[in-house]
Amino acid sequence: MNLDKIYPLVQALGGTPSRRPPWWLMRQAGRYLPEYRALRAQAETFVEFCLTPELAAEATLQPVRRFGMDAAILFSDILLVPYALGQHVGFDGNGPVLDAIGAGDLRRLDNGSLLRLEPVFETVRRCRTRLPTDVALIGFAGAPWTVATYMVEGGPSKDFRNVKEWAYRDPQGFAELIGVIERLTTEFLCAQIEAGVDAVQLFDSWAGALPEREFAQWVIEPTRRIVAAVKQRFAACPVIGFPRGAGALYERYVEETDVDAVSIDTAVPLGFACERLQKRVVVQGNLDPVLLLVGGKAMAAAVREIRRRLGGGAFVFNLGHGVLPQTPPEHVAELARILAEPTDASA
Amino acid sequence: MNLDKIYPLVQALGGTPSRRPPWWLMRQAGRYLPEYRALRAQAETFVEFCLTPELAAEATLQPVRRFGMDAAILFSDILLVPYALGQHVGFDGNGPVLDAIGAGDLRRLDNGSLLRLEPVFETVRRCRTRLPTDVALIGFAGAPWTVATYMVEGGPSKDFRNVKEWAYRDPQGFAELIGVIERLTTEFLCAQIEAGVDAVQLFDSWAGALPEREFAQWVIEPTRRIVAAVKQRFAACPVIGFPRGAGALYERYVEETDVDAVSIDTAVPLGFACERLQKRVVVQGNLDPVLLLVGGKAMAAAVREIRRRLGGGAFVFNLGHGVLPQTPPEHVAELARILAEPTDASA
Repeated sequence: MNLDKIYPLVQALGGTPSRRPPWWLMRQAGRYLPEYRALRAQAETFVEFCLTPELAAEATLQPVRRFGMDAAILFSDILLVPYALGQHVGFDGNGPVLDAIGAGDLRRLDNGSLLRLEPVFETVRRCRTRLPTDVALIGFAGAPWTVATYMVEGGPSKDFRNVKEWAYRDPQGFAELIGVIERLTTEFLCAQIEAGVDAVQLFDSWAGALPEREFAQWVIEPTRRIVAAVKQRFAACPVIGFPRGAGALYERYVEETDVDAVSIDTAVPLGFACERLQKRVVVQGNLDPVLLLVGGKAMAAAVREIRRRLGGGAFVFNLGHGVLPQTPPEHVAELARILAEPTDASA
Repeated sequence: MNLDKIYPLVQALGGTPSRRPPWWLMRQAGRYLPEYRALRAQAETFVEFCLTPELAAEATLQPVRRFGMDAAILFSDILLVPYALGQHVGFDGNGPVLDAIGAGDLRRLDNGSLLRLEPVFETVRRCRTRLPTDVALIGFAGAPWTVATYMVEGGPSKDFRNVKEWAYRDPQGFAELIGVIERLTTEFLCAQIEAGVDAVQLFDSWAGALPEREFAQWVIEPTRRIVAAVKQRFAACPVIGFPRGAGALYERYVEETDVDAVSIDTAVPLGFACERLQKRVVVQGNLDPVLLLVGGKAMAAAVREIRRRLGGGAFVFNLGHGVLPQTPPEHVAELARILAEPTDASA
C-alpha cells in the first residue's frame, strides 16, 4: 500500500486545500491519444485489452507521461465486474453489448470469481512501480446501480425500462442482483488497493435516472455499504463517488454515503458545489468535455472560473464526464499549463 | 380565446390549490393506445400526420375520451419548428433524423414561414370545439436550446458535441440560430393561443446538458424572452416550462424565466420541489413513466406519495417524462382512479 499521502492528489482527497489544484481527467487514457490507438490495435477485443497487464499498464501511463497529471487512473472498464460474474461482455461501435439478464438468471451468476480479474491487479502493480512517486494511482469500479443497468438492459439505454421494471416489480429479487454486484465490487476495490492503488472511484453514471426513493435504495445504500467495507479494511484509502446527473440529490449522496470526495458533472452549478457539497467532502470536477475539445479562450475562461469558485476549498480539477475521442491532445497540454498558473493569475 | 379559467387545470396553473389535483400526461396521446396506432397508419410520414388536422385532432382527443384527463395536449412535435424553418425532418426507428446544419446554413433558414404550420392551428380549433368545456387544451413548442440540439446534431445525441462546439466557439453565431428559433417559437405559441389553446408548455428536454453559465445563456434567457413576448399579447395564458434534467438549476430557472408552472422530471426530489420551487410557481410532475408501465401497488404508492408531498400547494399531476409505448392502457385508467380518490385517502 502507498498510503503515506505523499501525492498532491491524495492530500487533496484528504481534505487539504493546495495552492495549485491537483488534476486528472476521466478517460484521460483513451482514443484521443494516437499512442493509445496504436496500443489498442495489439489486442483483439476490448476486454482482452483490459486484461493484458502489459497493454493496460502502458495505456494507464501514457497520458501521465505526456501531460503530467497528478494521478493516473487504472485503464479498465466498469463492465469487468459483469464479465467476472460470467456474463458475456462485448463492445461494438455504439458501446457495450451484454447478454441481458433477468430474475431467472441470478443463480447462473458466478459470485466468487475475482480470479478472472487477476490480470487487473498485475496491471496495478506494474503501474505503481513505473509511476513517479508524486503521481497517485486511482482504481475504480462501476457502482452497483449503474452496473446493473448494463447487465439487465444489455447495453446503454434511453429509458432504463427493463432494469427499473425489475426493481419496481420485484425489489427483493433486484436487491439480490445489487447484492451480488456489491460484494464482488467491494472485493474488487479492496484487491486493487492491496495491489497498490492510492484511491478508488465509484462511477454511478446513471444515478440521475432514479426518483429519490429509489436513488436512496439503489445508489446511496449500496455505495454506503461498499464505502464502509472498504474503509474497514483500508481506513486511509480515499473513496471518490460519482453519481452523475444526481442534480439536487448530490447533497443527500454526500451526506449519507461517507465518500471522501464527490465528482460532479458539468451541470452542477459551482455555487451549489461550493456551498452544499464542499463543506462536507472534497469536490472534483467539472469542466465540460466539449470545452476541452474546443480549447482556446472559452476553455481557459471556464477552467479559471471553476478554479476560482472551488479552489478555495479541498478540490481536485477534473472534467464533468470523460474526455471525448475527438479531443486534440494539445488542448490537454494547454489545460495543464493553465492549471499550473499560480493562484493569483486565476482570479 | 378560452381564458375564463373554467378548467381545473387552468385554475391550478393560476396557482389555486384544489382538492383533487388536475392531471394530464406527457405523450398521453401516442403509441401505447391501439386507437392511436390505427389512426397513425392513415398517414405516411409523422410530419404529415402532425399536419393533418383531422388525424392530429383525433389523436389529441383519444386519451381524454378514454381516461378523462383534465387537459388534452395538442398532438404535434417539437420538430415542426425546424420543419417550418425549411429543414428536412424525418423519423426512423431511433427517433428524428434532420439534415444537420452549421453556421454556414443560417441564411438558408426560412425565417418567416409560420404558414407551413397553418394546419396546426386548424387542429387546435377542431380540438377546442370538440373538447368538453371542463377540459383544458395545452399547446406547446420545443424550447430554443433543445430544438437547436436537433437542428445541429441532426438527431438525438449522447454528448451534444456539435451543438455545444458551435455555442462555445461562436456564441454570436449560435445566438443568431437561437434567435431565429426563438422568434418563430414565439409566433407559433401565440398563434396556438389565438386558435384556442388555454396554456402552453415549453419542452427543454436537453436543458440538463449545459453548465450553469450556458444554461443561463441558452435555456433561461430565450425562455424568459419567449414568456415575456407571449405574456405581452396574452397576459392570462399560463406558460409551463420543462427544463428536463436541470437538477439544482431548476431553482434558478423558476426564479428567472417568469414561467407560471414548472414541469419536473423524475429525479427531482419532492422536498426540493416543495420547498424551492412550489413557493414560487405551480409544480407539475413527476411520476416515473416506468411506474406507469409497471402499475399495481408500486405505482399507487408513488402516486399517493407525490400527491401527499405536493398536493398541499398549487400542483398538476403528470409524469416526469413521456408515457412509454409499452405502457398498458389499463394502468392509465388505474391512475385516473387513484387520482380521483378524496384527499384523505391519499395521506
